[in-house]
Amino acid sequence: MINRFCRMPLWECNEDLVRVAQGEKPADLVIRHANLVSVTTHEILPDTDIAVACGRVAYLGLGEHTAEHCIGPDTLVVDASGLYAAPGLMDSHIHVESAMIGVAEYARAVVPHGTTGIFCDPHEVGNVAGMPGVRAMFEDARRVPLKAMMTPPSCVPAVTGVEDTGAEVTAADIADSMTWDNVVALGEMMNFPGILAGEQNTLDEVRETLRADRVITGHFPSPDRDRGLSAYVASGISSCHESGSFDEVLAKLRMGMWVQLRQGSAWLNLPGYLPQLVASGVDTRHCLLCSDDNHPHTLVDEGHMDRILRECVHLGLDPVTALQMATINCAEYFGLGNDMGSVTPGKCADIVLLDDLEGFFARKVFIDGELVAEDGRACFEVEPYAWPDFMTHTMNLGLTPTPETFRIPVDLPDGTARVRSMAIEPGDTITRNAVVEVPVAGGALQADPAHDVLKVAVFDRHHGAAGTHAFGFVTGFGIHGALAQTVSHDAHNLLVMGDNDEDMALAARTLAECGGGEVAVADGKVLALVELPVCGLMSTERVEVVAEKVAAARRAWEQMGCTMPSPFMTMGVMSLACVPELRLTNRGYVNCLTFEMEPLLAE
Amino acid sequence: MINRFCRMPLWECNEDLVRVAQGEKPADLVIRHANLVSVTTHEILPDTDIAVACGRVAYLGLGEHTAEHCIGPDTLVVDASGLYAAPGLMDSHIHVESAMIGVAEYARAVVPHGTTGIFCDPHEVGNVAGMPGVRAMFEDARRVPLKAMMTPPSCVPAVTGVEDTGAEVTAADIADSMTWDNVVALGEMMNFPGILAGEQNTLDEVRETLRADRVITGHFPSPDRDRGLSAYVASGISSCHESGSFDEVLAKLRMGMWVQLRQGSAWLNLPGYLPQLVASGVDTRHCLLCSDDNHPHTLVDEGHMDRILRECVHLGLDPVTALQMATINCAEYFGLGNDMGSVTPGKCADIVLLDDLEGFFARKVFIDGELVAEDGRACFEVEPYAWPDFMTHTMNLGLTPTPETFRIPVDLPDGTARVRSMAIEPGDTITRNAVVEVPVAGGALQADPAHDVLKVAVFDRHHGAAGTHAFGFVTGFGIHGALAQTVSHDAHNLLVMGDNDEDMALAARTLAECGGGEVAVADGKVLALVELPVCGLMSTERVEVVAEKVAAARRAWEQMGCTMPSPFMTMGVMSLACVPELRLTNRGYVNCLTFEMEPLLAE
Repeated sequence: MINRFCRMPLWECNEDLVRVAQGEKPADLVIRHANLVSVTTHEILPDTDIAVACGRVAYLGLGEHTAEHCIGPDTLVVDASGLYAAPGLMDSHIHVESAMIGVAEYARAVVPHGTTGIFCDPHEVGNVAGMPGVRAMFEDARRVPLKAMMTPPSCVPAVTGVEDTGAEVTAADIADSMTWDNVVALGEMMNFPGILAGEQNTLDEVRETLRADRVITGHFPSPDRDRGLSAYVASGISSCHESGSFDEVLAKLRMGMWVQLRQGSAWLNLPGYLPQLVASGVDTRHCLLCSDDNHPHTLVDEGHMDRILRECVHLGLDPVTALQMATINCAEYFGLGNDMGSVTPGKCADIVLLDDLEGFFARKVFIDGELVAEDGRACFEVEPYAWPDFMTHTMNLGLTPTPETFRIPVDLPDGTARVRSMAIEPGDTITRNAVVEVPVAGGALQADPAHDVLKVAVFDRHHGAAGTHAFGFVTGFGIHGALAQTVSHDAHNLLVMGDNDEDMALAARTLAECGGGEVAVADGKVLALVELPVCGLMSTERVEVVAEKVAAARRAWEQMGCTMPSPFMTMGVMSLACVPELRLTNRGYVNCLTFEMEPLLAE
Repeated sequence: MINRFCRMPLWECNEDLVRVAQGEKPADLVIRHANLVSVTTHEILPDTDIAVACGRVAYLGLGEHTAEHCIGPDTLVVDASGLYAAPGLMDSHIHVESAMIGVAEYARAVVPHGTTGIFCDPHEVGNVAGMPGVRAMFEDARRVPLKAMMTPPSCVPAVTGVEDTGAEVTAADIADSMTWDNVVALGEMMNFPGILAGEQNTLDEVRETLRADRVITGHFPSPDRDRGLSAYVASGISSCHESGSFDEVLAKLRMGMWVQLRQGSAWLNLPGYLPQLVASGVDTRHCLLCSDDNHPHTLVDEGHMDRILRECVHLGLDPVTALQMATINCAEYFGLGNDMGSVTPGKCADIVLLDDLEGFFARKVFIDGELVAEDGRACFEVEPYAWPDFMTHTMNLGLTPTPETFRIPVDLPDGTARVRSMAIEPGDTITRNAVVEVPVAGGALQADPAHDVLKVAVFDRHHGAAGTHAFGFVTGFGIHGALAQTVSHDAHNLLVMGDNDEDMALAARTLAECGGGEVAVADGKVLALVELPVCGLMSTERVEVVAEKVAAARRAWEQMGCTMPSPFMTMGVMSLACVPELRLTNRGYVNCLTFEMEPLLAE
């Protein structure tokens, strides 16, 4: 596998590097007096000089040796006295869309935190806009210095036959994508039941990736640590970020998997296993770090890989080991170890100068030898991406929502009816399969705000007039008004929830008009709106602006009566048919234990 | 990079593995109750079951789990109670020719010692028979289960312009070889001065290898641990087996190199740095093991990788760490980590069952799930290889050696003359640039046995009548009679040494007639002969037979008066122009410090 995430491939510049190392040609950049974090030997090497040319490290001056001989009149000399020079940080698994921005803007947000490489799986965009959308994500990414290694989404749709998505990804699509120059792996293979059952398209995706000599990233949250796990790994899937306990991490490492230790915005797994991992003393060479999903406010308020490293050290992990997990381990897993992952001769000069190995504040960040961030700010600017029309016109509802649209007709007299309902548990992703009584009035089922029973509607937004929609009920949110969002995993259809049809209609219309996003409405008034016009998933604004709008939406939720943590996320998985127990898609209720559809009326 | 050192690529059998793991299809092989050496976690996992199908591991039964569900009526079940199951051992750098046999016979010798993979650099054959000879070596290798990963020789000739070799290897040859299906890397780049000086063919070989996404194995014995080492590594060369001290090992690891710790027949480097490496506590993930050169008797009497592992443990290295160096580290360096290096699902079932982790006796050896050796014996047989004519007719001297051939005419009166002479130091490779007095008689320079001054002659054996020969003198061997050999690094010309022209002529004729090898002659009688008819380097006989003939030759040396250790090897590097100080090639004396030719007569 050759991918060129570098200013120049080594074979085009090795002669220059040889000359620079020997003082026959000046370096472009010399970093002096750094405490070098040697991730190859697990050491800190004090007072080290690093000479860079053609975007790559040409020379390391260790011990008494200096890079003075590499300095010419035009060499940029950076004094790193007191700072630590580490390889650029890498996030081994990330869905950029969770931050509601594109990759270029993501780069502006994370590079100042020391991140120089991310391995993205544009699974959400894939579900809305298919492989052409994935390709556009990749093109956006090319405009910034951040190295965005791509892993095309393997599971679009996530579960077949229970909902309508904007696209499908086939094994042939995957085979094609493996020829793209920035694709380094297959995106997380969530369909582990498909692997275990021998589903052909699923296995074929794996096969096409193996044939292309790339790795397959995994997703195996099953409690099975025996036959199922062996089978999953034997199929060729070599990594996993879905572990909840040390036993699970250890079982996967023993099976030969590379384990991505996860600390995202919502899934804070590190405390659940890292202390035990440290205590066990097992080899961590196959441990990587990842965030999986970052919300915009996490990036703005807390950071990215630096945040994860802080947590690692806080939980007792040696900081050099933590840095190995964020650098060389990651590069070696993805077959990029010859170009990245350590600050050694010949490698890309992706270097972060850290204040210390506790806070991991990135004082300066270099990618391919260019200064790309300093003192917490990106040194590069990027214009909004010119997204193609098919990605900015994804609200294809085929109707204009009115209050009448939300009427749930029923052939029953006025009174009450027993209906199936999703019962939300705060802070959990589970939606219990419950039955509640709701009022019947005028031949229609009604919400019952007095008992916290809200109406829910899901509209296919991908197929226009041919699309369908379905209704359900939910308990647990406790709001008055309506909420709607197009971030609705994994099909990202239009999800609307409320206690009255007027507010629900206004919420739906508002999103239909702005191209998707997240909206809160009460008493005929829009309280908060996060516009996400790109695929209904991503904003075209700055991450700080998006974070502020999301915060305003969160305040609106509170104002409407909902006190649960991250209600937006909880709502966003109400259609996610691969997680138990009952979910509502545009086709109706799905029993996520049997994968059969269920009727709205109970009995 | 994709190479298929497996019975079946994973993409052709992953469905079967998935089924076997889940008990839906029986395994071909089940190993039960083993102490599994987990090189991914650095643990020993007691009572582990391993199920194998299609030549790959399908299932690991850890802890309370067993592989009983994988056993069918035709499954071979091996009880490994009390044994350790480790990944098959790999030698990261080996010149098979040093054992004077081809790869298939080598396999028969080393597989019973637990070796399942070797990374060969047929540098000697390359110098005699060029890339077609290298290719024939590779074809011979295909006939045996041993996985012979190939690294084409990069330095043919080793030094340009001072001798005549049988072939040259150019960057274009290297580029071509990178398309061969068993080539995984470039063979050791010995020409480090060429790299540092920016020689184009040398850099081009590196570039072609990088372009082919393969690694470049190195050879950097220079004391320079600063600029030269940085430059060498920056050129793209990523490993080295030439380290003499811990400082050197550490310097290379810090520079990002993968360091091949060497314990061959002649070069016993481990004691020189391993104890310090252990004490240092540095990360050893980039340390590999290699033998570089094994003489036949080492393989017969002591073993191969098991011998090196014993020495590692004897020197204080943790046995699991030692096994990592001989397995997963090696596989990961060469980009083969997805197929080999650990006993985990999906990987090739290259497994060795060891009695213990001290003696490392290989009770059973499996390659691709087949039992290939048991109780120290190979389970496979192999016919002698049908070597092509151009490899079995390499004694192209263009003359029939007679005593007259060895006359060194000189335009001087009878008496004495001062001549340049190579001064041998026992047990060292250095040949000092000395001056001695020799008799002049009848217009010719004479040997002076009384003062241990022997005549030496080197004949181009590659170019027939167009070839040249040259004379010199040597001190230090102390023999009476003559010795000749065609194992004469690196051009492998015919090297003859003796104290009288008659014995020298007989020795030379004997080798000319048998196709090359090693011969000892005294008083008109052949005392010992090791026939090496393949390129004058390799026998067609069994390794045990070759070892016995070599032992007989060693006894002949002693009988002739030479008591130094390994005189055959010391003699074999008398033409090796890349090692100091004075060497004799078919073109004459080479000053190996200045790389200029020197006259025979000293002022």
